[in-house]
Amino acid sequence: MADKNVCPTFESTAMPRTLRVTIWNEFIHERQHAAVQVLYPNGIHAVLDEALSRLLGESVQTRVATLDQEEHGLTYETLTETDVLTWWGHAAHDRVEDEIVDRVQQRVLNGMGLVALHSAHASKIFRRLMGTTCMLRWREAAERERVWLVDPSHPIVDGLTDEYFEIEQTEMYGEHFDIPPPDELFAISWFEGGEVFRSGCTWRRGKGKVAYFSPGHETFPIYHNPNVQRIIANAVRWAAPSGSLYLGKGRNIAQPLGPIAAKHVVDEGLHRAK
Amino acid sequence: MADKNVCPTFESTAMPRTLRVTIWNEFIHERQHAAVQVLYPNGIHAVLDEALSRLLGESVQTRVATLDQEEHGLTYETLTETDVLTWWGHAAHDRVEDEIVDRVQQRVLNGMGLVALHSAHASKIFRRLMGTTCMLRWREAAERERVWLVDPSHPIVDGLTDEYFEIEQTEMYGEHFDIPPPDELFAISWFEGGEVFRSGCTWRRGKGKVAYFSPGHETFPIYHNPNVQRIIANAVRWAAPSGSLYLGKGRNIAQPLGPIAAKHVVDEGLHRAK
Amino acid sequence: MADKNVCPTFESTAMPRTLRVTIWNEFIHERQHAAVQVLYPNGIHAVLDEALSRLLGESVQTRVATLDQEEHGLTYETLTETDVLTWWGHAAHDRVEDEIVDRVQQRVLNGMGLVALHSAHASKIFRRLMGTTCMLRWREAAERERVWLVDPSHPIVDGLTDEYFEIEQTEMYGEHFDIPPPDELFAISWFEGGEVFRSGCTWRRGKGKVAYFSPGHETFPIYHNPNVQRIIANAVRWAAPSGSLYLGKGRNIAQPLGPIAAKHVVDEGLHRAK
Amino acid sequence: MADKNVCPTFESTAMPRTLRVTIWNEFIHERQHAAVQVLYPNGIHAVLDEALSRLLGESVQTRVATLDQEEHGLTYETLTETDVLTWWGHAAHDRVEDEIVDRVQQRVLNGMGLVALHSAHASKIFRRLMGTTCMLRWREAAERERVWLVDPSHPIVDGLTDEYFEIEQTEMYGEHFDIPPPDELFAISWFEGGEVFRSGCTWRRGKGKVAYFSPGHETFPIYHNPNVQRIIANAVRWAAPSGSLYLGKGRNIAQPLGPIAAKHVVDEGLHRAK
Repeated sequence: MADKNVCPTFESTAMPRTLRVTIWNEFIHERQHAAVQVLYPNGIHAVLDEALSRLLGESVQTRVATLDQEEHGLTYETLTETDVLTWWGHAAHDRVEDEIVDRVQQRVLNGMGLVALHSAHASKIFRRLMGTTCMLRWREAAERERVWLVDPSHPIVDGLTDEYFEIEQTEMYGEHFDIPPPDELFAISWFEGGEVFRSGCTWRRGKGKVAYFSPGHETFPIYHNPNVQRIIANAVRWAAPSGSLYLGKGRNIAQPLGPIAAKHVVDEGLHRAK
Repeated sequence: MADKNVCPTFESTAMPRTLRVTIWNEFIHERQHAAVQVLYPNGIHAVLDEALSRLLGESVQTRVATLDQEEHGLTYETLTETDVLTWWGHAAHDRVEDEIVDRVQQRVLNGMGLVALHSAHASKIFRRLMGTTCMLRWREAAERERVWLVDPSHPIVDGLTDEYFEIEQTEMYGEHFDIPPPDELFAISWFEGGEVFRSGCTWRRGKGKVAYFSPGHETFPIYHNPNVQRIIANAVRWAAPSGSLYLGKGRNIAQPLGPIAAKHVVDEGLHRAK
Repeated sequence: MADKNVCPTFESTAMPRTLRVTIWNEFIHERQHAAVQVLYPNGIHAVLDEALSRLLGESVQTRVATLDQEEHGLTYETLTETDVLTWWGHAAHDRVEDEIVDRVQQRVLNGMGLVALHSAHASKIFRRLMGTTCMLRWREAAERERVWLVDPSHPIVDGLTDEYFEIEQTEMYGEHFDIPPPDELFAISWFEGGEVFRSGCTWRRGKGKVAYFSPGHETFPIYHNPNVQRIIANAVRWAAPSGSLYLGKGRNIAQPLGPIAAKHVVDEGLHRAK
Repeated sequence: MADKNVCPTFESTAMPRTLRVTIWNEFIHERQHAAVQVLYPNGIHAVLDEALSRLLGESVQTRVATLDQEEHGLTYETLTETDVLTWWGHAAHDRVEDEIVDRVQQRVLNGMGLVALHSAHASKIFRRLMGTTCMLRWREAAERERVWLVDPSHPIVDGLTDEYFEIEQTEMYGEHFDIPPPDELFAISWFEGGEVFRSGCTWRRGKGKVAYFSPGHETFPIYHNPNVQRIIANAVRWAAPSGSLYLGKGRNIAQPLGPIAAKHVVDEGLHRAK
């Protein structure tokens, strides 16, 4: 992995005073389809930006980045100044450069949070961090979705005031969802047409936290839904960098921390193939 | 379970402005043994109280409760006003009344955090929540313990500045530790005499969060150790109530949320044994 | 816990040549209600017995036990000769003696598998092992249930040939299901009336394995369903005793496994309260 | 991913009568260094092959494959006929072709078990499946390792007759080990020089099971150790294909499984970027 991809780990382990959030959007559908423009005239990122700023207030500082920008707007500098990255992509996952994916992955391992939204299940970065296909069943039939909160103790569902909430018209995402068993499962969705889906999941990768939340689609006003906005805002806060010193690289510790009885001379040359 | 044991669930799901912490201590060794008095002249609870107040500042409001108080200091009122309970016991687990254990368990299920410390692994409340014996190997030989942080992303290790820290003289707690597999494992201890131990663990029970941290003993000054204090303070903050509405009780939902094709008349009498 | 409740741990750690299964049934509804008798004329246990014997063949040896037998049919001797226990109860959980619950719990911790079926979610033994209320929403409206298999790699779903299977008429069990996060989640159910449910879960407790599977009800012929029978048979096989030496009790290891630098004299008297 | 890399999923979901195991070895050190030749004259794979055949008998059929063979001995045909793959590599991870890594990953997702041994923590295939660096501390000082079994119920520790076993001289692998939190943790190692390590872990990826076991090194006779051999044999058996139908690919389910109220016409063209 090129050095310029290795953004530094977080030096201070305490949560930063202001959480720096970068909202990434593929930003294609909104510019090509009238039906999407009506719902998201300035892009899905604009709606997310407004919601995060409103719900998290001064504790957060947002910026947006899109596919068509140089380095997809995810330069070394931008990522170094990002605590949590949200990701929305759908039609052009393959246009995201592998080098940028390397860089984002490294940054996550070094502590940056990642909140993957809806069709980001198939993004390169999410699949890279999961190690699986992340594929699923889907159907776009404007059916009803009922999002059940199955971990009422989780900070990501803070402030939700019922056991479930509804989305009147949604795209169905259904099981089997080919993900590693989530470390935490906070939501399961019911679909009118007959499927279920693990719609709210978290994982830890390196020093970074990863959340996935499926509700949200370009042809439905789901990102205007207050419960959906609240969960995404909570997920951003949950994914904030935290924890202890992280080195995240292999290293030889020649000197033991305490005495070792055996006398042993290592032939280090042996560890390299000729 | 008697009604007076059912403390209410947290009405507001957002984290309370000030975290109300109750520090529970068996408080026996400190009054009976000179060797312990030297280290903890006012009780282990006093040292924990000072540390939490110093490290968490105005975000926390503490009180203490001990075994010899009426209802062990854990009245319905006290628990209703407690967001997080820390527990230290060792010599008199069996003197804790079952009715109080019921009440604390119910309160945890309703959202109160529990931080179980050292020999609290064998307390009634911890075993009740775990469902196992929670037994382990032990040895008091003033050996060295090295606490390795195996989840550098976890908020409970916030601010720790190395991959491990040392405790010069400790009581050994060793595997096999008969606990359910922890939801999260943040620390593993190495002992000079040859054992290892899952020394930092978390679980979720109902709406409540439970943390266990083993370093700490009455005949060693471990609760004066800054790293130990920091982890306990972080654990208290982590265990704070959070999440969504919680009912935590069974109930019949006679009306479906959507249409059901079958016509079916339930004979509810059938569900009760004659 | 009384000594006679402590059934021995499994001496041989290899899976026994023949798996000894005890099928426990409350056996009340089947004797009191004509509607249930039609479906389960000889009791639910008889249907399970036939299914396990047919599907597992000579690898299994079954016996049945019921609430009205002496010690509920779960004597020390019977449990000592049981590798896996299946549990069905509904109307009379409170009639199961605490002493028997203690004994079964101890046996599970010592390695016996437990397969909890349907309304056994509210049994004393299941709640004891979980530490939570295990409560849920329910509705009996003969609605359709679709059981989605969300872990296609799990041995408990061996041989299932589709991504889901259907139960035409079922009792609904819905979230929030107040259980500890399962170690493994292999099935999620969709209900016609609008709920979802984590219908297939596993946990480890001590040396024993615990599975819960919700489909199954006394007023529907669900235990005659081939997919349900297959999953229960797989669960029995999965829950078979396995693993390494298990002691499951605390003990003082006075002699370290290696040298300790400090010279320390322990005042063992200190560890007992006066 | 090229079609020829997509080995088929397992058609029969039941465990094959004979488990087909491929033992992969980098096979470099054994041909270059006299010190290694003394311990493993025919290669590490030969010792593993003998042990698996001896311990698993007729239930297993083994073959070996090495880096220098065409396609590293992992042709489409070989993988299609492999149920479990064991992997040992150290000095030449980067010489493994990415196309072969793709193929092995796909085969694991389709149900093949993978048992990663010792320095395979840094192999391309293991890192690919984990999504993290998988890096760690290490030291070669011939120190003592004590492998503690922390999940006595796990089939991978079947037949182990103590709470731990020792390896007299080992290479130290220490925390922090940059892996995703394991789904199951069955062993933690203690090292004389002061470190601990999660030495026995499992994960699920797609329909495949992955185990990692760290003890084993080319300059120590660790693969001759009976406990190590037993655990590897158990891991192979545990990683055998099992479970239900697996499709593992995204697909549009145009027809719902039940009625949907809304009338909705999908503009499928919208889902493709122009």
